[in-house]
Amino acid sequence: MKTLIVYAHPEPRSLNGSLKDLAVSTLEGAGHDVLVSDLYAMNWKAAIDAADFGPCDPLRIPRASGQAFDAGTLTPDVRAEQEKLLWADTVIFQFPLWWYSMPAILKGWVDRVFSFHFAYGVGEHSDTRYGERFGEGTLAGRRAMLSVTTGGPESHYAERGINGPIDDLLFPIHHGILYYPGLEVLPPFVLYGTDRLSDEEYPDVAKAWTDRLLTLDSTAPIAFRRQNYGDYEIPSLQLKDGLEPTGRSGFGLHVR
Amino acid sequence: MKTLIVYAHPEPRSLNGSLKDLAVSTLEGAGHDVLVSDLYAMNWKAAIDAADFGPCDPLRIPRASGQAFDAGTLTPDVRAEQEKLLWADTVIFQFPLWWYSMPAILKGWVDRVFSFHFAYGVGEHSDTRYGERFGEGTLAGRRAMLSVTTGGPESHYAERGINGPIDDLLFPIHHGILYYPGLEVLPPFVLYGTDRLSDEEYPDVAKAWTDRLLTLDSTAPIAFRRQNYGDYEIPSLQLKDGLEPTGRSGFGLHVR
Repeated sequence: MKTLIVYAHPEPRSLNGSLKDLAVSTLEGAGHDVLVSDLYAMNWKAAIDAADFGPCDPLRIPRASGQAFDAGTLTPDVRAEQEKLLWADTVIFQFPLWWYSMPAILKGWVDRVFSFHFAYGVGEHSDTRYGERFGEGTLAGRRAMLSVTTGGPESHYAERGINGPIDDLLFPIHHGILYYPGLEVLPPFVLYGTDRLSDEEYPDVAKAWTDRLLTLDSTAPIAFRRQNYGDYEIPSLQLKDGLEPTGRSGFGLHVR
Repeated sequence: MKTLIVYAHPEPRSLNGSLKDLAVSTLEGAGHDVLVSDLYAMNWKAAIDAADFGPCDPLRIPRASGQAFDAGTLTPDVRAEQEKLLWADTVIFQFPLWWYSMPAILKGWVDRVFSFHFAYGVGEHSDTRYGERFGEGTLAGRRAMLSVTTGGPESHYAERGINGPIDDLLFPIHHGILYYPGLEVLPPFVLYGTDRLSDEEYPDVAKAWTDRLLTLDSTAPIAFRRQNYGDYEIPSLQLKDGLEPTGRSGFGLHVR
């Protein structure tokens, strides 16, 4: 495997830092190649703005980012991340869940690296196809997985928990960010209750994470529906009648 | 009304910029006080890190941010935003939906301004209370509303649409970010299909937005359940048996 780890935590000695280090040593120890994008250490620029592109007045981000991608003139930091994504067959995102989503610096990695013509605006539109996305696209054939820590306990993220189910909270990332440009998404590795995690509990955590890392190859991805293969009306992209699993609604409709 | 508009778009002449300008002129024209936090113009720092706090080694963000909040030593930019939130009775967030969530610069506003002891870690824990959050907290008594633009058409965000229902996509922001520290959340103003919005259509958009702005006072908030008033088991914070509306699951459980 060739694995890219995109890591977003400001403190190297944090739990997230430890999990990132463990992923590197575990995967390298198993003979895999690993690259790490340590966004805080890289001082990653989070806010997409006019400085990301050549002169454009007014700034329209899809147009500007598509033109810069086509011309090879995106900024070097963004191009380097796109090259890492194309090099990798597996992408792991290691981050703490802050306010039920990713840290701003990681959202800024998505906003800037997932440029027009790279991650969206790809492929032809026709009566039977609505571009290459949701199962097709530039990153098709690759796999991704989130490794996430939460402060609160697991019950708060359960089916009836006050925060909402973790699968639904992560759906906009899993489906909307990762699956959109073609990545197959593995079930996440989620550590709950990390505000109260003791040193004594860490060996069990490390064991569970190591087990996941060493079975990435054989882990089945989440069975999100593909956009262009008959499940959706085009161009409304509504799920066709009768395809909904019994009792499922909302985000759950989009899993086979 | 005293309204704070938190605005996140890099191009003043964008649709988002126009909607922000229209909100200012409409509300001021109706005799209200308005403050704008124009995050791009302010060059808002998105990534929370050690520079946000005094010396702390290792950096533990909740502890560090709580200590700095208590001591009044959070950075001046963060303190200014907290003061604006305390000044306001209404908070409007104007932003484009990028990758099914907020732009990184706005997520960074949340990550940094919503400090420990200000937006979380507030109130006592007991057998019947789990802190002041989800309907209680520092910002209780205030109202918030998202004004969001999407590139894709409305059908993609409908109940069976491929992106998932807009109410579910916005739930982590509505419930997890805004309702958490006590804000009542009004139904969002969502403009779809803005990639193809023509100049000829803008007057209708402006009319719809103006109508929403002038009826903020009389708009009923989303009826999210309160945490500490009997709907949830404590401390598991699971919705009590029998309270689920018929046929509803997931995020929808948490609306009365």
